[in-house]
Amino acid sequence: MTAASEQTNGQSGKRIIISVDAMGGDFGPKAVVAGIKRSADKNANIGFLVHGPAATLTQLIERRGLGHCCEVRDVAEVVTMDAKPSHVMRKGKGTSMWSAIDAVKNGEAEAVISCGNTGALMAVSMLQLRKLPGIARPAIACLWPSRNTGGFNVMLDVGADIRADANDLLQYALMGGSYARNGLGIQRPRIGLLNVGTEEHKGRPEIKDAHDLITEAAPQAELDFVGFVEGGDIPSNRVDVIVTDGFTGNVALKTGEGTASLIREFLRQAFRATPLSRVAALIALTSLQRLSMRIDPRRVNGGVFLGLNGTVVKSHGSADATGVSSAIKLAFRLAESRFTERIAARVASAPVARQDALRSDQNNEQTG
Amino acid sequence: MTAASEQTNGQSGKRIIISVDAMGGDFGPKAVVAGIKRSADKNANIGFLVHGPAATLTQLIERRGLGHCCEVRDVAEVVTMDAKPSHVMRKGKGTSMWSAIDAVKNGEAEAVISCGNTGALMAVSMLQLRKLPGIARPAIACLWPSRNTGGFNVMLDVGADIRADANDLLQYALMGGSYARNGLGIQRPRIGLLNVGTEEHKGRPEIKDAHDLITEAAPQAELDFVGFVEGGDIPSNRVDVIVTDGFTGNVALKTGEGTASLIREFLRQAFRATPLSRVAALIALTSLQRLSMRIDPRRVNGGVFLGLNGTVVKSHGSADATGVSSAIKLAFRLAESRFTERIAARVASAPVARQDALRSDQNNEQTG
Repeated sequence: MTAASEQTNGQSGKRIIISVDAMGGDFGPKAVVAGIKRSADKNANIGFLVHGPAATLTQLIERRGLGHCCEVRDVAEVVTMDAKPSHVMRKGKGTSMWSAIDAVKNGEAEAVISCGNTGALMAVSMLQLRKLPGIARPAIACLWPSRNTGGFNVMLDVGADIRADANDLLQYALMGGSYARNGLGIQRPRIGLLNVGTEEHKGRPEIKDAHDLITEAAPQAELDFVGFVEGGDIPSNRVDVIVTDGFTGNVALKTGEGTASLIREFLRQAFRATPLSRVAALIALTSLQRLSMRIDPRRVNGGVFLGLNGTVVKSHGSADATGVSSAIKLAFRLAESRFTERIAARVASAPVARQDALRSDQNNEQTG
Repeated sequence: MTAASEQTNGQSGKRIIISVDAMGGDFGPKAVVAGIKRSADKNANIGFLVHGPAATLTQLIERRGLGHCCEVRDVAEVVTMDAKPSHVMRKGKGTSMWSAIDAVKNGEAEAVISCGNTGALMAVSMLQLRKLPGIARPAIACLWPSRNTGGFNVMLDVGADIRADANDLLQYALMGGSYARNGLGIQRPRIGLLNVGTEEHKGRPEIKDAHDLITEAAPQAELDFVGFVEGGDIPSNRVDVIVTDGFTGNVALKTGEGTASLIREFLRQAFRATPLSRVAALIALTSLQRLSMRIDPRRVNGGVFLGLNGTVVKSHGSADATGVSSAIKLAFRLAESRFTERIAARVASAPVARQDALRSDQNNEQTG
């Protein structure tokens, strides 16, 4: 029995164990362990299973004084960013990513986080954890800075699958609603279905059908369906959850991030342009930091995989200590609220898409 | 013979006539005439045909002293923002939008601008101006603030059609390249095809096929094809033109605008938070204005319809005088470069998609 689990069974009895893939991020295990340090300093009820080469990890963990809450799982191989998901599914058993997911499957940890290859993480998670009963396609949900009082909206799918039929979009609405309730504490989430503005264009058949399905399912699922929303509504306070297919969602997410990053760059240039503007920037430092806090992508780091038997949080590949720590916090919060069980109950009890139920179940048996 | 055309044939002989739909924008004809005033003050080689109710327009034009360069076309009806494009196509003859497009069809004006209903504007433009030979689907191209030295990238389609097959995407690449050359002065535009990041996802068949078609066509079209790009690359300096279908492009455009607007709002809030930050904002005013200039959506106002026999510029519905004036400037620039003829020549000479040529021509005969 080891450090992470001992304390779970021992002194507090409440410790939640997070399984961490320490490898595969752009900044390597050093940034990941630095993120663990930040989270551990703020939260005594957390323990870590850290997966990767023991020689490297043990040294990093000891240097940070994290021996009391971290247990290393020695795994030699790493899933690279350009690895093909299908290859990792077949040959990935000796990797830190596989090992990290395995710990959730085996019940040793309650959630897993990884900064690695998204496609591979989804593929191995589906293979190991399996889809929840009734779910045809799992989705990745992200947080988006918004005008809502909580500061964030949820958008899904942002890249688990490029396709989504009407029933998938309905399930995204139900899962996204559940995530907003458990992850963000919104009692009655408002759901919007992403579409383009012109009347004539509101014609993609699967989106029209999804509109009808969500309208029907929303009351029993305790959701408010606000109907179609546009790209400009993603950060708005008309809505808490934005539902779309993974292709559109991924493009929207990266477009939003790219725009924010461009503006940050222009802002820096504007403040460096003249000596006076440099002085102004110094005086305005607090204001600028306040702005930065609200649009910092590291604060919203953590895409959550919804629809699996277990909580998987995908951190940005380029996450630094702050980013990793945000992803850990999110994983902890979801584990604490027993999110997976809740989402399963929600999907199972929803009076949804009866005409498609058979198809979904069949899919699930075949591929899940 | 009237003010606008007299001077064309008379003193300068170089005057370019822009046809302006004065109605249908959120701020009504007052904002449109204010935009005309700004453009007329800066450019003596421009004349206007202004379409809408004569009583209102004549008064606005005289108050601004624009009688020498504006001619009013009295039209009573207006296309509303919620009008169905199909209805406007059948019943729209008495509207300012129809009349404004008609002036380009009849050769009285060289380009048309409208702040009205996008779907209706596209439908009536297609009906009146017809598609260029060989073009299956026209597209709307927008300008996007970027890290390139010129300050802008081009993206298309941003909403003309929600569908696009591989051949359409190829034509968007050719038309977008031509627009970047003639509208932005980029001699050898770099083209990127929008996709999602994960290898596994690079599988939408039409995008893969378009990748092959553009690769083949790029050299003769004097374009550099950089391959797949992601949402984060839209404002980058790796690329000048981003090609995508109208659904994805519309969502990306509105997401980018929504993000920029959110950040502007957060920035204002940050600078209003404390007395010291208010002082800093005053000192930083020039820097902030410099930033504002670079991300101001009014400066990039003007979606251009590509693939028609005539130049149509769609201004934002919410355009104020600055926005309308930007759209007029763009229309003038494209008319001056004889853009429509150039794009027709480019599409006709491209050695493209031979296997689809017959299909496209057939489509064109049926619907164009």
